[in-house]
Amino acid sequence: MTSDSRRVVLRRASAELVGTGLLVAAVVGSGITAARLSPDDVGLQLLENSIATAFALGALSLIFGPVSGAHFSPVVSIADWWQGRRTRTGLSSRYLGAYAVAQILGAIGGTVLAHLMYGLPAVSVSTRVRGGGGMWLAEVVATAGLLLLIAALAHARRTVLAPVAVAAWIGGAYWFTASTSFANPAVTIGRMFTDTFAGIAPASAAGFIVAQLAAIVIALAAITWWYPEARGQGGVTVEETRADGARYLPTRDRRR
Amino acid sequence: MTSDSRRVVLRRASAELVGTGLLVAAVVGSGITAARLSPDDVGLQLLENSIATAFALGALSLIFGPVSGAHFSPVVSIADWWQGRRTRTGLSSRYLGAYAVAQILGAIGGTVLAHLMYGLPAVSVSTRVRGGGGMWLAEVVATAGLLLLIAALAHARRTVLAPVAVAAWIGGAYWFTASTSFANPAVTIGRMFTDTFAGIAPASAAGFIVAQLAAIVIALAAITWWYPEARGQGGVTVEETRADGARYLPTRDRRR
Amino acid sequence: MTSDSRRVVLRRASAELVGTGLLVAAVVGSGITAARLSPDDVGLQLLENSIATAFALGALSLIFGPVSGAHFSPVVSIADWWQGRRTRTGLSSRYLGAYAVAQILGAIGGTVLAHLMYGLPAVSVSTRVRGGGGMWLAEVVATAGLLLLIAALAHARRTVLAPVAVAAWIGGAYWFTASTSFANPAVTIGRMFTDTFAGIAPASAAGFIVAQLAAIVIALAAITWWYPEARGQGGVTVEETRADGARYLPTRDRRR
Amino acid sequence: MTSDSRRVVLRRASAELVGTGLLVAAVVGSGITAARLSPDDVGLQLLENSIATAFALGALSLIFGPVSGAHFSPVVSIADWWQGRRTRTGLSSRYLGAYAVAQILGAIGGTVLAHLMYGLPAVSVSTRVRGGGGMWLAEVVATAGLLLLIAALAHARRTVLAPVAVAAWIGGAYWFTASTSFANPAVTIGRMFTDTFAGIAPASAAGFIVAQLAAIVIALAAITWWYPEARGQGGVTVEETRADGARYLPTRDRRR
Repeated sequence: MTSDSRRVVLRRASAELVGTGLLVAAVVGSGITAARLSPDDVGLQLLENSIATAFALGALSLIFGPVSGAHFSPVVSIADWWQGRRTRTGLSSRYLGAYAVAQILGAIGGTVLAHLMYGLPAVSVSTRVRGGGGMWLAEVVATAGLLLLIAALAHARRTVLAPVAVAAWIGGAYWFTASTSFANPAVTIGRMFTDTFAGIAPASAAGFIVAQLAAIVIALAAITWWYPEARGQGGVTVEETRADGARYLPTRDRRR
Repeated sequence: MTSDSRRVVLRRASAELVGTGLLVAAVVGSGITAARLSPDDVGLQLLENSIATAFALGALSLIFGPVSGAHFSPVVSIADWWQGRRTRTGLSSRYLGAYAVAQILGAIGGTVLAHLMYGLPAVSVSTRVRGGGGMWLAEVVATAGLLLLIAALAHARRTVLAPVAVAAWIGGAYWFTASTSFANPAVTIGRMFTDTFAGIAPASAAGFIVAQLAAIVIALAAITWWYPEARGQGGVTVEETRADGARYLPTRDRRR
Repeated sequence: MTSDSRRVVLRRASAELVGTGLLVAAVVGSGITAARLSPDDVGLQLLENSIATAFALGALSLIFGPVSGAHFSPVVSIADWWQGRRTRTGLSSRYLGAYAVAQILGAIGGTVLAHLMYGLPAVSVSTRVRGGGGMWLAEVVATAGLLLLIAALAHARRTVLAPVAVAAWIGGAYWFTASTSFANPAVTIGRMFTDTFAGIAPASAAGFIVAQLAAIVIALAAITWWYPEARGQGGVTVEETRADGARYLPTRDRRR
Repeated sequence: MTSDSRRVVLRRASAELVGTGLLVAAVVGSGITAARLSPDDVGLQLLENSIATAFALGALSLIFGPVSGAHFSPVVSIADWWQGRRTRTGLSSRYLGAYAVAQILGAIGGTVLAHLMYGLPAVSVSTRVRGGGGMWLAEVVATAGLLLLIAALAHARRTVLAPVAVAAWIGGAYWFTASTSFANPAVTIGRMFTDTFAGIAPASAAGFIVAQLAAIVIALAAITWWYPEARGQGGVTVEETRADGARYLPTRDRRR
C-alpha cells in the first residue's frame, strides 16, 4: 500500500468518523433538547427528535457523500462490499474494516460531543431497556428498508436523491417501528453511552445489533429478486463516485 | 405466457404487495406510537401520523417505483390501465388483476406486521365508525386529487418528483379532508383489521371504497379536459419505466 | 376570437378556478381539523394548518402548473401580465380578467367545499377581525416576498422548483408575519365566508387586499433593480410553459 | 471603479441587506408568534420557530442566490473570499466589506421589521443571557458544519440543492446544539435588539461571535483535507454564478 493510497483510506475513514459522530450528536442532542423543553408529552419529544434527525441526516449525507459515500453505518458498508465483491466495484475489504471502526469510534465520539455541548459528563451509561420480539422485528424492517432504498436509488441512477430519501425513511421509521428505528449498529453502540432520551442500555444493544445484521441477509435477497439486472454493478459508493465525486475518489484507489 | 414473463408479473406484483404492506404498516404503526406517546391531544397524534406517513410514502415510492411503478392502490392501477388501454402503453389487464390482489393482500399483511412490531394480536377488527356525506365527499376529493397529480406529473415528464409530490398531497389531505384521506381501497381494507388509531370499521369501509372508485371517473374526465394532447400516451407505469426502469421492465413484457 | 382559443381560455381559467378552490379548501379544512383536534394550543393549530397548507399548495402547483401556470392569486397574475406586457410574452389582458374572476369564484367555492366536507352550512360569514398597521405591513412583506420568489425562479430558469419554493415561503410566512400571511386577494375573499379558524371578517378583508395590491408595486420595483437583464422576458406563465407545458399552451394562443 | 461596477456592488450588497433582514425577521417574528400562541410548551415553540426558519431560509436563498449568492452571513462571505483569494474566483476584498456591512445592517433592520409587524417598539435590547463552554462549542459545531456543507455542495457541483440543504442543516441544528444554532455573526447582532423569544443579551453576543469566527478556521482546514483537489477553485458565489446567474454577475465585475 503506497503512502498515497493510505492517505485516501484515511481521508474517507475520517469522513465516516466525523459524519457518524455528527449524526449521533444530532440524535442524542436533539433528544436532550426535546426532553428538556417538552417535558409533558413524550410524543412531542419524539416528533422534535425525529424531525431534527431527518434534517441533520440529510445535510450530513450531502457533506460527506462526495468523500466517503456517507455510509455512517456498518450495515450499509457491509451491503456495499458484498454487492460489489465480484466486480470489484464496491467497497474493498480493506475499506470495510476501516469504515466500520471509524463509524463505531465516531458514534461514541458523537455522544461525547453532545454531552459536552449540553454541559453533561462526557459519557453516562444508559439504563434504558429496549427489546423483545416486536422491537427486534422492527429493527429488521427499518434496516432492511434502508438497504432496499439505497439499492433502489443506486440502481435507478437516482443517488442524487439519497440524502432526502434516507432522511425521509429514517424520519418516518422513528414513528412506525416500535423500536424508534435505530437501524444502525454504530449508532446503537454510540447511544449506549448516554443516559438521556436517546439512550439504550448495553444489555439491550446486542439484540438490536443482531436484528440489524440479520436485515442485511433479507435485504440482499430482496435486492437480487427485485433488481436482477443489477447484479455485479457494485454498491452505493460507486454510484456516489460516478454521480459527483470522480475527482475525489479516483478509480485506481478503490481496489488493490 | 412464458415462464419468463410469469416471473416478471410475479416480481412486479410482489413489489406492490410488500410496498403496500409497508405503507399500511407505516400508517397503522405511526398511529399506534402517536396514540401511546401523545395521549392528550388528538391533533398532535394526527400531526405525527401524517408526517410519518408522508415520509414513509415518499421513501417507499422510491424503493418500488423502478420495479412496479409503486401504485400501492387499485385506484391508481385502474386509472393507469384505462388511460393506456388503446395504445397498449399502460398496465395490461393481466397486470391489473395481479396488482389489485397483491395490494389488498399486502395491505392486510401490513396491519399484521404493525401489530407484531407493537406486541399486539395479529389482527383486531376495528370498531371505529367513519362515514356520512361529508366524509365520502372528502374521499372523492382526496382520491381524485391524487389521480390528477399523478397524471399531471406523467404528462409533464416530471415523474421524478412523484415520490415527493404524492407524499405532500397525502400528508396535506390528512388535514383538509374530513375523512383524513384514506384515498386507497387496498389501504382501507387493510385498516379494517386494526382496532387502533388508524382503524376503520368494516361496515364503514364500503362507503369509503365506493367514494374512492367514483373519484376515478371524475379524475379521468378532468384529465381529458386539462391534458387533451395527452390522450393515448399511457399512464403512470409507462412514464416510470421510461424515466428510470427501462432495464427492469422491458417493453415486450408490458402487453401481450 | 376563434372557438379553439375560447376553449384554451376556458381550460386555463377552469384550472385556476379549481386550483384556487382546492387551495382554499385546504386552508379552511385543515384549520377546522386543527381547531377541533387540538383545542388547547392555538400555536399547535397553526403548526398543523401551516404544514397542511404548504403540502397542499406544493401538490396543487404541480397539478395545475402545466395547464395555467398555477397562479391561484390575482396578485401573481397581475405581476405576470405587467412584466410581459411589452414583449407580449406574459399573460394577456384577456387572460388576466378570466384568471382573476376564476380565482375569486374558485376561492369562494373552496370554502363551500370545505364546509360540506365537514358537515357545516355551505357558508358562514367570518366574525374574526384582523388588521391594523402591523398586519397590513405583514401582508406587504408576505406578498412582495412571494412575487420576488416567483420572479427569481423564473429568471434563473428554476421554475421546476416553484412548487416547493412557494410552499416553503407561505408555510414559513404563516409564522413570521403577524397576519399569518394571507398574501392573496382571492384567498382573502374566499376566507370571508367561513366563520372558522381561517376566517377573516369582511370588514377586515379590504385592508388586507389593499396591502397585497400595494405589494405588487414594491415587488416590481425590486425585480427591476435586482434582475435588470430580465426586463422584457415575460413572466411566470411563460417560463412554466417553456419548462414543461409547450404542448398544452401553444404560443399562438398566448396573445392575440 | 466605474459607475457601472459601483452599481453592481450596490445591487449585490442590497440583496444581502434585504435577504439577511428578512431572515432575521423570520427568526424573530416566528419566535414571537410561537411564544404567544404556544405559551405552555417551550419545545413546541422551538419546533414552530425552527420549521418557520428553515422554510424561510430556503425560500430566501432562492430569491437572492442569483443576485448575491445569498450568503446572509459574514462567516460565509469570509470563507468564500479566503477560498478564492489566489485564483481570484471568490468574493473580492471590496465585496467582502460591503457584504459584511450590509448583512449586519440588514439583520438589525430585520428585527425592526419584525417588531413593527407585531406592534412592538422598533427595538428592545435583549436580556436573555446565553453562553458558557457548551454553547460556544455548539456554535462552533453549527457554524463549521454550515461551511462544510456549502463547500461540499460547491465542489460536487450541487449548489442547486443549497437552499434545501442549508435550511435542513439550520433547522436540525436548532435542536441538536445547546445554543439553538445562531451560526451567524450578523444574525447574532440583529437578535441583540429584540427582547423576545429569539433574543440574545449584548453581553452574550461576543462569545457567540468569537465561536462562529473560530469555526471558519476549523472548517477551512477540514475542507482542505476532505476536498484536496478543490483548492483554488473559488468559493460559493462563483458556483452560484455558474449555475444560474451568469447574466447577472458578469465575470469582469468580480475582481478588479
